[in-house]
Amino acid sequence: MSRATAYRIGVDLGGTNIQAGVLDADGTLLHRDRCKTKAKHGAEAVLERIAGLVERLIVDAGIERGHVAAVGVGAPGAIDVERGVVVNAVNLRWTDLPVAARLADRLGLPVTLDNDVNVGAWGEHAAGAAKGHDDVLAVFVGTGIGGGLILNGRLYRGAHCTAGEIGHTILNADAPLGQRTLEDLASRSAIVRRLVQLIESNHPSDVAERVGGKWEKVRSRVLAEAAAAGDPLTLELLDDAAHYLGTALANAVTLLSIPCVVLGGGLVDALGEPWVERVRERYHTRVFPPSLGETSIVPGALGDDAGLIGAALLAGTTLTQSVGSGHHPPTPEKS
Amino acid sequence: MSRATAYRIGVDLGGTNIQAGVLDADGTLLHRDRCKTKAKHGAEAVLERIAGLVERLIVDAGIERGHVAAVGVGAPGAIDVERGVVVNAVNLRWTDLPVAARLADRLGLPVTLDNDVNVGAWGEHAAGAAKGHDDVLAVFVGTGIGGGLILNGRLYRGAHCTAGEIGHTILNADAPLGQRTLEDLASRSAIVRRLVQLIESNHPSDVAERVGGKWEKVRSRVLAEAAAAGDPLTLELLDDAAHYLGTALANAVTLLSIPCVVLGGGLVDALGEPWVERVRERYHTRVFPPSLGETSIVPGALGDDAGLIGAALLAGTTLTQSVGSGHHPPTPEKS
Repeated sequence: MSRATAYRIGVDLGGTNIQAGVLDADGTLLHRDRCKTKAKHGAEAVLERIAGLVERLIVDAGIERGHVAAVGVGAPGAIDVERGVVVNAVNLRWTDLPVAARLADRLGLPVTLDNDVNVGAWGEHAAGAAKGHDDVLAVFVGTGIGGGLILNGRLYRGAHCTAGEIGHTILNADAPLGQRTLEDLASRSAIVRRLVQLIESNHPSDVAERVGGKWEKVRSRVLAEAAAAGDPLTLELLDDAAHYLGTALANAVTLLSIPCVVLGGGLVDALGEPWVERVRERYHTRVFPPSLGETSIVPGALGDDAGLIGAALLAGTTLTQSVGSGHHPPTPEKS
Repeated sequence: MSRATAYRIGVDLGGTNIQAGVLDADGTLLHRDRCKTKAKHGAEAVLERIAGLVERLIVDAGIERGHVAAVGVGAPGAIDVERGVVVNAVNLRWTDLPVAARLADRLGLPVTLDNDVNVGAWGEHAAGAAKGHDDVLAVFVGTGIGGGLILNGRLYRGAHCTAGEIGHTILNADAPLGQRTLEDLASRSAIVRRLVQLIESNHPSDVAERVGGKWEKVRSRVLAEAAAAGDPLTLELLDDAAHYLGTALANAVTLLSIPCVVLGGGLVDALGEPWVERVRERYHTRVFPPSLGETSIVPGALGDDAGLIGAALLAGTTLTQSVGSGHHPPTPEKS
C-alpha cells in the first residue's frame, strides 16, 4: 500500500480504561488517548465509546480516515480471532460479541481483534524489548497473570486459540485449590491478599499506614514504594512471588527452549529491574538444561503502551483475516 | 524421487539396544532388527555396530543400497541436528561425536541425526496415534521422562534445540531438590525408588516376592503385573504418578493449547489404557480453560517402534539438512 494509507490504529480495551493510539507507516506512535470503559453501561455503549475514541484520535492526530489502513483491537477474555468475536469476557460480561464486525461497520475501516495479552506480547516483540527475537514468551503480571507466545516470528495461538495461559499453570501440584497456580502465587492480587492476611494477624508492615488501612488502595505502586522503603513483609512476599514466577518461566523455557522472555504488566513496571533480577536468579537455578540460562529475561520496553502498539502492528500483519469492513482491505504491510 | 529409491532406514540408538527398520515409499515397516549397543566398548565400536545393523537390514530386506534414500538416526542426549553431532550423551559417554557424518561416510548414504525423543514423537505424529494432528505433544515415560513437540506440522526444537523437556518441569516448587520435577515424581525410576523405600519400611506389597527381593528387576512389566493383581502399594504409587503426569500435561496444554497428547514409553506401554485414563482424569480437573478438556490424550500406537519409524520418516523430510554423505542427496520426499 502507499505510505499515505499506512496509518494503523491500536485499541487496548481493558475492564477500567480504553487506550488507543495512531501509528504511522514506520510504526511510530504519533498520538495516543484514552477514556473510561464504563462496562456497566453495557456492550453497545462500550463499542460506541471505542468508536468515539478512534474518531477523536483521527481528528486529533490530523490524519484522514481514508489513510487509515486498519484498526486493531485487543480485548480481554476468550477471543475467536478469525471471526473477530469476543467469545467470553468475564470482567466486561460479554458473550459472543462480534466486536470486529460491529466496529468495522461503525467506523468504515477494517478491524481485527485479538486477545489483550497477545497484542501486548506482539507489541514487545515487534517494537519493544524483544525486537529482533523470533521466539518470545511475554508474561504480564498485574491483577492476574497472562502470557503470550511468539514462535517462529508469528503469534502462536494454539489449536483452541488459548495458548499462553501461563498464569494458570500449576506450580504446587499438591497444594489446596487457590494456592496452586502461578496466578494464585505471584499475581498482585495474590501478593496483596497474603499481605493483608499477615498484617491482620499482626505481622509488622508499614503498608497499612501507607493506604490508611484501605486495602483496596494497595496497588503495584504502593508495593513498590513499601519495598523501596525496606518494609520487610513486603520484601518477603515479593521475593516469594519472584521465586514462583522464576520457576514458572523455567518450566516454560524448559519445555519450549525460548531465547527471550519479556516481563510486563503493572507489577513489573512498578518494581522494575531489582525485582526482575530476583526472578532471573530463581529462573537460573531451575531451568533445564542449564545452557538455557542464556535466555534473556528482560522488563518490557513499552509499559502501558504495549497493548495498543501491538494491536496496531498486529492489525497490519493479519489484515487478510479482518472481517466485516465492507471495504476491500488493502494488501497488508509487514510490520 | 522415483519409488525405486524411496526406501528409508530408521535407527533408534538406546543405551542398551540398537533397533533399526526399513520403510518403503509408503512408510510401511518392511523389516526390523536389533542388536546390543555395548556402549562400554567405546564410540567407534558402537558406530560400527550401527553400520553393521544397517548393512544387515539392507540384505535381509532384499533391497538394494542404491534404492535407500536416507538413514535417520535417533540418539539420546543433546543433539546438534544441523551438524548431525551428538553433543553430549551421558549414558553413552559420548561428547561432540559427529555421528551423521561418520555413518554417512561408512555407509555411503545420507544420514540425519536427531534426539531419540524427537524421533519417537515424529513417529507417532507421522504414522501413529497422532496421525492427522498438526500440533502434538508426545511424552515418553520410562526410566526418565522425555517429551517432543510438533507445532504446525513440524518438529519444534526451539532456539537451543532442547524443546520438549517436560520431564524437567517443576510441579512442586517448594519441595526439596529431587522431589520437584515430573521425572522426580512420575518416572519408573521414581516410582520404583519410592516403592522400595516403602517396602523396606514395612509397607505390605507383593512386589518383593515377584522379584525375589532383587529390586533391579522391578521393571515396568512387574509394576503392571502387581497393579493387575491389585497390590495396594503399587496401585497407590501409580495413582500418584498419574496425578503428577496429568498435572504436567495440563500445564503444557494450558501453555500451548495443544489438541493431541500421545503417551508412550515402557511404563505406558506396560500399564496401558487403565493408567492413561487415570492421567486423563487428573488432566481434566487441572487444564485451563476447561474447554481444553477436548484435547485427546492417547496411548502411542507404535510402541517400541516409534523411534525407528520416526527416525526413518524424519530423515525423509529433513534430508536437505543431511551432512557428510559425499553423495548429492536426492530431492527429499514428504512423508
